[in-house]
Amino acid sequence: MNYGTNDGEEVDLERMNKAVETLKEWAKKVNEVLEKEFDDHIKRAGKIHPEGARIVEHLKEYTLRSGKRIRPACIIAGYKAMGGESEEIFSASASIEAIQTYLLIHDDVIDEDDLRRGGPALHKLYRELHEKNNYKGNSKKFGWDMAILAGDLANSFGVDQLAKSNFDSEKKGKTVRKLEEIHRHTAYGEVLDVIFNYKTIDEVTEKDTDLVYELKTAHYTIAGPLEMGAILAGGTKEQKESLMKYGMKVGSAFQLADDLLVLYGKQEKIGKRVGTDLEEGNKTIPLLIAYKRGNEKQRKLIRETINKKNIPQETVQEIGEIIKETGAYDYCKNKVEKLIKEGKKEIENAEIDPKMKDFLLGIADYIITREA
Amino acid sequence: MNYGTNDGEEVDLERMNKAVETLKEWAKKVNEVLEKEFDDHIKRAGKIHPEGARIVEHLKEYTLRSGKRIRPACIIAGYKAMGGESEEIFSASASIEAIQTYLLIHDDVIDEDDLRRGGPALHKLYRELHEKNNYKGNSKKFGWDMAILAGDLANSFGVDQLAKSNFDSEKKGKTVRKLEEIHRHTAYGEVLDVIFNYKTIDEVTEKDTDLVYELKTAHYTIAGPLEMGAILAGGTKEQKESLMKYGMKVGSAFQLADDLLVLYGKQEKIGKRVGTDLEEGNKTIPLLIAYKRGNEKQRKLIRETINKKNIPQETVQEIGEIIKETGAYDYCKNKVEKLIKEGKKEIENAEIDPKMKDFLLGIADYIITREA
Repeated sequence: MNYGTNDGEEVDLERMNKAVETLKEWAKKVNEVLEKEFDDHIKRAGKIHPEGARIVEHLKEYTLRSGKRIRPACIIAGYKAMGGESEEIFSASASIEAIQTYLLIHDDVIDEDDLRRGGPALHKLYRELHEKNNYKGNSKKFGWDMAILAGDLANSFGVDQLAKSNFDSEKKGKTVRKLEEIHRHTAYGEVLDVIFNYKTIDEVTEKDTDLVYELKTAHYTIAGPLEMGAILAGGTKEQKESLMKYGMKVGSAFQLADDLLVLYGKQEKIGKRVGTDLEEGNKTIPLLIAYKRGNEKQRKLIRETINKKNIPQETVQEIGEIIKETGAYDYCKNKVEKLIKEGKKEIENAEIDPKMKDFLLGIADYIITREA
Repeated sequence: MNYGTNDGEEVDLERMNKAVETLKEWAKKVNEVLEKEFDDHIKRAGKIHPEGARIVEHLKEYTLRSGKRIRPACIIAGYKAMGGESEEIFSASASIEAIQTYLLIHDDVIDEDDLRRGGPALHKLYRELHEKNNYKGNSKKFGWDMAILAGDLANSFGVDQLAKSNFDSEKKGKTVRKLEEIHRHTAYGEVLDVIFNYKTIDEVTEKDTDLVYELKTAHYTIAGPLEMGAILAGGTKEQKESLMKYGMKVGSAFQLADDLLVLYGKQEKIGKRVGTDLEEGNKTIPLLIAYKRGNEKQRKLIRETINKKNIPQETVQEIGEIIKETGAYDYCKNKVEKLIKEGKKEIENAEIDPKMKDFLLGIADYIITREA
């Protein structure tokens, strides 16, 4: 995809590539922290019972499987943007990656998704263990149960990771509260997401899905982590507000760009995710707009496909075409561009560290030009 | 039941009744805090979306349904035992009651229990809402999903409740970490509990179940909360150790006494819980000892009944008889008495506030004389 040139604005490629390099550098440091932390928990859990160590080993492997560490990066960027200089920020920032593991594991249970980050979901690992060990009862149920508990554990790792970091106690206390606010907003977003999935497409509006994107992605992935970092560094109210506004805009664009990537990104990935989205009853913005603008035949196909199981690949592709034909794709592309432009503007005039300003501007561009 | 007189020791009834009175007084204050807190969360969640407010309203009703507030009481007692005097402790102590709501809701999902505290489980409330609103998809699955998220929310309420209380930031930070340690230990206990439920009775030992009791009850219900309170007040290492040792003994006795109450308490309550325990594959200490000591016929009945569905009431009663006939009941009763005696001894010589010493001794006696 190529955004950002419609109205003559060029993406600053050098700035963007530098931001991506920084992201990679930080991800490496965050991964080192995570590896050490999980090893500590494995050791401690192993003293209780080998099954304690086993579940943490699964959590470690699941967490380190992949990931750009965009959420820790936002904590680090928020901190440095306010002039924060302690290396301890890498340790504190890893907290949200354990929270991410927790949320993904519960998400996978809710969505009954067996695959995550190119490997088996947590519940699948325990389903297989049940079968291998010839346990009594239902292996699927055993998998769900263990995944709920594994998620609960990862949540605790995350909170503790932040609470033990070496920052001023008062600022740290405020940051723990911010993390919990992010946690709640994400959970409210997931509550709405689940409820909307169980409703018909006629009952869900673009505004409803916008709210889910704001709660589940914008606040959780960008705005909240930036604010956490800013609190740890002791930023001013104005500085924090700029970061928040940037984060909400760019974060919503991030989710919407992801929807489009899923629809029209690398061919081999398309079918599966779009099909899964439709089967789960996901009311994405592109789908809602296509449904709103479609003719009766197109609307009927969408209405009768969503929430069904085993949707044929042809139907999935047909719906992809409808999204293009109705102009829903262009509508979303423009919405992404507008959000990114507005988000960047928030940060351009903010009084923050210039290096971090460049980083955040580069990341905003990266979000709309990335291909996976 | 009447414990504590076997070896000539009398229960100090006056001290015990006074402790129970104190427990009730504190529970009232804790409930006031919880009510106010949930109302605040309802208000804030309602600003996001009415479904946000709805889920918190369910959490409020579920939390306030009943409960002795034994865990908050232990936080309060631990605090006062070290000379703590701030009324703010009632607010901080309510944190663990939100955590309790969270753990119970996830427990109910795992055990597929529809009843809790004399009312519908959280998942049942949402199952019914699904049916009432004619949502698409499976109402049971919708119930499980919403309950997982409701539990996750309650967890966040709990951590925030503690993090925002008006105590010295450093002590509070340490207490948050202690709460998370308790949270993890409870989760490890639940992991083991689930795994043991899926194993045959030949594969689980008394030591295994002892460990589950220590993690899921003793540490979580008594020892951990006492230590949290002690940390907030700034107790010495020796004082905290006395409380911990008392808590682990009395807490394990609490769970074991509960097993016996379920077996031989008020008639109308017996059948259901014992039956459910057997159906879920719960390897309680009384059952394990009866199985170990039983003759081949008795062992066969236990082995062939556990983990089955729809166990007839006669079989449940027969297994209750086996537990008495094999001496498993007496074994457990003695074990409870021994644990309580040892627990009381830990506190009798501790240098803590004398009123709180009496409270803790009274609570220990209450645990083994209560009838429901």
